[in-house]
Amino acid sequence: MKFIDKLRRRMDEVKNVLAIGLDTDIERLPEKFSKDSHGMYEFNCMIIESTKNLACAYKINSAFYESSGYDGMRTLQKTRDLIGDIPVIYDAKRGDIESTAKAYAKAAFELFDFDAITLSPYMGEDALNPFLKYEEKYSFVLCLSSNKSADNFEYHGEPPLYSEVAHLVNQKNYESGNCGLVVGATVAGRLAEISKMAPKSLILIPGIGTQGGDAYAVMHSVDHQKIIVNVSRAIIFADDPVASAMNYSKILSF
Amino acid sequence: MKFIDKLRRRMDEVKNVLAIGLDTDIERLPEKFSKDSHGMYEFNCMIIESTKNLACAYKINSAFYESSGYDGMRTLQKTRDLIGDIPVIYDAKRGDIESTAKAYAKAAFELFDFDAITLSPYMGEDALNPFLKYEEKYSFVLCLSSNKSADNFEYHGEPPLYSEVAHLVNQKNYESGNCGLVVGATVAGRLAEISKMAPKSLILIPGIGTQGGDAYAVMHSVDHQKIIVNVSRAIIFADDPVASAMNYSKILSF
Repeated sequence: MKFIDKLRRRMDEVKNVLAIGLDTDIERLPEKFSKDSHGMYEFNCMIIESTKNLACAYKINSAFYESSGYDGMRTLQKTRDLIGDIPVIYDAKRGDIESTAKAYAKAAFELFDFDAITLSPYMGEDALNPFLKYEEKYSFVLCLSSNKSADNFEYHGEPPLYSEVAHLVNQKNYESGNCGLVVGATVAGRLAEISKMAPKSLILIPGIGTQGGDAYAVMHSVDHQKIIVNVSRAIIFADDPVASAMNYSKILSF
Repeated sequence: MKFIDKLRRRMDEVKNVLAIGLDTDIERLPEKFSKDSHGMYEFNCMIIESTKNLACAYKINSAFYESSGYDGMRTLQKTRDLIGDIPVIYDAKRGDIESTAKAYAKAAFELFDFDAITLSPYMGEDALNPFLKYEEKYSFVLCLSSNKSADNFEYHGEPPLYSEVAHLVNQKNYESGNCGLVVGATVAGRLAEISKMAPKSLILIPGIGTQGGDAYAVMHSVDHQKIIVNVSRAIIFADDPVASAMNYSKILSF
């Protein structure tokens, strides 16, 4: 089944657009978990078990697993397997020449069997094409991000770089039907504008909570059928992760 | 010892600016090696053992290890350890918000203990700063690449995006002394121009050989003290890797 259908079906079940981000920073694990890749896995088990009825998807941030070396990569694989049929996005921001991108795509979609990935567009479409060839998978391409220095380059030029990226993504999605965008929640004011540039693309929206984005503002900016909203640290490292997940799942419900 | 001093010392020993890229694509391993992560490691041992007097550095391309899952990541770690004191660049093109970049930097510089890394600048300086804090390590930031679709975005705007990246890298390098650029060999004609924008930054130059870049043209474009030139597939998958490495080490000698 294609990612987009799998996600739609799941959204219809949970009636929200919340993705929970497993940014499992070993340094921030609660005391009862060991500060190693085993503790990471146990923590992920707890989060997934207690939130799996509240989220339409999970997002796994590669960095926090790589930073435990190959043991961390085993935890990444085990965590992905544990999630099973719920859609899982691999937040990896990969972007390289075609032969290298092909190897990254194999890693993400064949080895780890993620349903979707995030990509970086700097090198242009060569960096995207090998991922888009996997028809059942989905690729979210960085467009406008939620961090302070997004304005270093993303607004560069006239029209600004981010809109050039949105137009390329729209074109690629027209060809393959599996190419979307990443737009940070802190720029909710631009969501409607960007969505019009790539009207058939799904938009993954990180930056809620710790990064300052406002979930209400996002839900009022754009049709809920076009978005999937990720919350990571504000749920998993909350004093009460389940209460936080419930709260966000309500705000992000339809 | 700082990467730049380690590299200079090594360059003075081998009298060339050749880095050999271990893009160890499992599908292209010669028949006598098993097509798994063990075969990758055996192949890398053979390449490193037979070329270690011919190169000033090695570059390890993360994608080809990730694509064998966590077993591949173990091979990546073992390969890095095998190289020992020769400078090793982690070709990873990572680029994400600050908290995530911090975790990627920990992976690259603490866990795997690489000497340098390649980064993607799309999200601006937040994506670079956590790496630059490692004073003894070095970061090469994508500027102008060697692939066909480099012109999708890298030339966007006036001045073009790649020159904006070079200027930011120059500023960061002024502060930290460990920030350089990645410029593809296929755009050798722009090397002198880019080098002037970031006069104290080292430039890592991939794209020689399989990608069509010309090593002679590169050596005639810019002062050899400012560059390190990578050759991957054209050496490691040559019929005679040692002969190919000797050939490139001569062209790239000073």
